[in-house]
Amino acid sequence: MSKGLTSRTEDYSQWYNELVSKADLAEHSSVKGCMVIKPYGYAIWEKMQAVLDQKFKDTGHSNAYFPLFIPKSFFSKEASHVDGFATECAVVTHYRLKNDGNGNIIVDETAKLEEELIVRPTSETIIWNTYKGWIQSYRDLPILVNQWANVVRWEMRTRLFLRTTEFLWQEGHTAHATQAEAIAETEQMLNVYADFAENWMAVPVLRGKKTANERFAGALDTYCIEALMQDGKALQAGTSHFLGQNFAKAFDVKFTNREGKIEYVWASSWGVSTRLIGALIMAHSDDFGLVLPPKMAPIQVVIVPIYKGDEELQKISATAQQIMGDLKAKGISVKYDNRDTQRPGFKFAEYEMKGVPLRIAIGGRDLENNTVELARRDTRSKETVSNQGLANLIENLLTEIQQNIFDKALLNRAEKSTRVDTYEEFKKVLDDKTGFVYAHWDGTPETETKIKEETKATIRCIPLDNPLENGFCIYTGKPSKQRVVFARAY
Amino acid sequence: MSKGLTSRTEDYSQWYNELVSKADLAEHSSVKGCMVIKPYGYAIWEKMQAVLDQKFKDTGHSNAYFPLFIPKSFFSKEASHVDGFATECAVVTHYRLKNDGNGNIIVDETAKLEEELIVRPTSETIIWNTYKGWIQSYRDLPILVNQWANVVRWEMRTRLFLRTTEFLWQEGHTAHATQAEAIAETEQMLNVYADFAENWMAVPVLRGKKTANERFAGALDTYCIEALMQDGKALQAGTSHFLGQNFAKAFDVKFTNREGKIEYVWASSWGVSTRLIGALIMAHSDDFGLVLPPKMAPIQVVIVPIYKGDEELQKISATAQQIMGDLKAKGISVKYDNRDTQRPGFKFAEYEMKGVPLRIAIGGRDLENNTVELARRDTRSKETVSNQGLANLIENLLTEIQQNIFDKALLNRAEKSTRVDTYEEFKKVLDDKTGFVYAHWDGTPETETKIKEETKATIRCIPLDNPLENGFCIYTGKPSKQRVVFARAY
Repeated sequence: MSKGLTSRTEDYSQWYNELVSKADLAEHSSVKGCMVIKPYGYAIWEKMQAVLDQKFKDTGHSNAYFPLFIPKSFFSKEASHVDGFATECAVVTHYRLKNDGNGNIIVDETAKLEEELIVRPTSETIIWNTYKGWIQSYRDLPILVNQWANVVRWEMRTRLFLRTTEFLWQEGHTAHATQAEAIAETEQMLNVYADFAENWMAVPVLRGKKTANERFAGALDTYCIEALMQDGKALQAGTSHFLGQNFAKAFDVKFTNREGKIEYVWASSWGVSTRLIGALIMAHSDDFGLVLPPKMAPIQVVIVPIYKGDEELQKISATAQQIMGDLKAKGISVKYDNRDTQRPGFKFAEYEMKGVPLRIAIGGRDLENNTVELARRDTRSKETVSNQGLANLIENLLTEIQQNIFDKALLNRAEKSTRVDTYEEFKKVLDDKTGFVYAHWDGTPETETKIKEETKATIRCIPLDNPLENGFCIYTGKPSKQRVVFARAY
Repeated sequence: MSKGLTSRTEDYSQWYNELVSKADLAEHSSVKGCMVIKPYGYAIWEKMQAVLDQKFKDTGHSNAYFPLFIPKSFFSKEASHVDGFATECAVVTHYRLKNDGNGNIIVDETAKLEEELIVRPTSETIIWNTYKGWIQSYRDLPILVNQWANVVRWEMRTRLFLRTTEFLWQEGHTAHATQAEAIAETEQMLNVYADFAENWMAVPVLRGKKTANERFAGALDTYCIEALMQDGKALQAGTSHFLGQNFAKAFDVKFTNREGKIEYVWASSWGVSTRLIGALIMAHSDDFGLVLPPKMAPIQVVIVPIYKGDEELQKISATAQQIMGDLKAKGISVKYDNRDTQRPGFKFAEYEMKGVPLRIAIGGRDLENNTVELARRDTRSKETVSNQGLANLIENLLTEIQQNIFDKALLNRAEKSTRVDTYEEFKKVLDDKTGFVYAHWDGTPETETKIKEETKATIRCIPLDNPLENGFCIYTGKPSKQRVVFARAY
């Protein structure tokens, strides 16, 4: 807590890296590309997991667990899938080490695998190979399964939470008797993600479909939620894929339908990852550190005593205990920091950096007046308030803070959303104003690729609620029926 | 549910395999040695996780996450550690696949790692390498961290839940300023495990220390809880290790103590795994399927309607809804199975196989009499009881069932615990009566090894509450001051 952060305007990327470190969220490990998620960062992930897991269960899903390793031959069965992941696979080739006789530990070449194993980058192949044994009849459907797991995608350039070789995620894999059911599931889970992003993480998101270029390898349709960060770059926060019968065909998973006919099974898969923690940080935080929406805060309220001598501390502690009891009774998480090894100013800076939504300070004068000092992290405003009705006040304030943080993010997005009609304007907005750029596009992958090569902007999505509108592609001038959303992205 | 199980007396091992399959708990995957944990099996693991995680947090621990991969050089730093795990390591050597031009996916030899990565079999090395950056002063201690993760130990002969190449577990890794604190932590966590085993899993356990032969690779002392299965074989259900300063020395983790002196940090580590599900199955289940103690049952009560026609079903459903409301209000998990695709007899067999502790059946006559039929899984007894006060009755019954299941397991252990004073008697008991055998041992690894080679029995532990007693080693006749506990084990 000794020094402040580089400001966002000075160097957004540097600001992010410093914040992740100083707020004790994560650090790079000695294993290239892999991160250590520290206890405070992991506590945020646990809050995310708890909410999402309940939503999955409320929509009829169960958790299960499938192997970390995927035989190379399985991985190769769905052609576009292996194309999409082949260049980033960690490969296990041996299963034993030995001492070379000179005291060095080396790989035992006699323990070479007949078939190499891939560390899962995603689990469609191993899961559909398993589902083959679970599905014979329409009575066995739907299968609604989710897995919480680690996955590995080899990355050359990594960024804590946003892009790491190993990350944590959940992956839902469902099997259905009809195309309509599988699409409905895909859309339902997109809505679950959007609801979570907006109403828990306080991050407004666009719901849309990816273009063919940006689709998941093996999907017929990829739905996504797209968020906008404070620096005007987009971040894909979750995806839900309609897989058609691709994996069923690759793994020969058929069933007898209600009419007694044999058909291939329909599929969806959907996932969010520890990347969400990166989104949460970049959507809300400021130059003083992390800003957490109360619903995602491991500690919602911290109480810091300001005292001279043990006697005063004891009186303050009694008051603090009472307040804590009242808050806990309302389900509010609260920490009392009476460490005597650090001064109040140090603690204030620490909790500001860690984004604790509300800070209560109690000093000698507060004891006399039956007051406390209440400080909001989001607005950095302070006021002295009465102890009377404090828990109710705090409960309401937490709701207000949650809403305020969402509103600020929504405003940022509104200010950084622009409609353009020419390529010149498009490039200028991308460079100067940044953000989501709504523009006409001729619908071809070729044009999309050229625009990406020239501007580094990609089509983030075709919004689900997109209005139809006649226009002309900003790049080719060909006719277009709707605008799509471009942005530079994480 | 079509066929029953092989009986335990006929073939215990076959009974176990069939039960795991028919109760829908897990199956072998296509990846050698790796299992698929199916939704019902995983739901049991989630119950275990929830209870243990709360206990860890109540004792001051936080969760975090460390990399899946460990550089080979780290792994080699603690000599006895690498000796213990070298022969069972999955090794990642490459990070890319490619198409060979003939449509085959092959490992890209140009993407060979400079240093091989080991898929973690346990995380002491990567964690202590990380702790080096976290610890400078006694103010940074203790560090009380736990990780929920998957680990890989290559196994040639596997058994679902009991011994698999990949398994799920938690591993606590703590760092302390003093030896006494580290030992106290080691003992505390052993007690947490014993409490969980006995009071949640209803499995009585011995608390003890391992002999040097059976110690964790890198530990100064390994504490364990040892359970006895129905077939008289022991199962190590959890371990807690006092690591001394071994890993601190291997990774150069020092701190400045309160007196201003530089010292190495003291350590503990402790873990339980999905193996506990195997223990749960083998401790309690019978020839009709799984028997679950209510505290570990994903479904505690199931309600099955027995009806003729829609009208009767509707009336039964109304009663069922009321019962469900009453039970849920008490925190009891309940499922109403009104599937019309299966007959009541099929459902009865299914829930018996799956170990649901209580089954309620409601038929037409029950509606008239305001009764239900209540069946206990543990005793397989049935009675017709009034709807009045049913929720209270069930709440009490679940407590009684939990206790009864524990008592049966305790009785099994008592019947299969034997004191012997000669090697002949020792071998005879092992072969005929099985179970825990309390015998004098001269305290040498050599004798222990010889006994193991000759009888396949190992010293399970030296109980913590062991009475001192003079005697003579059953194998060498040398003097001994206490009995130790031998058994054949899983």
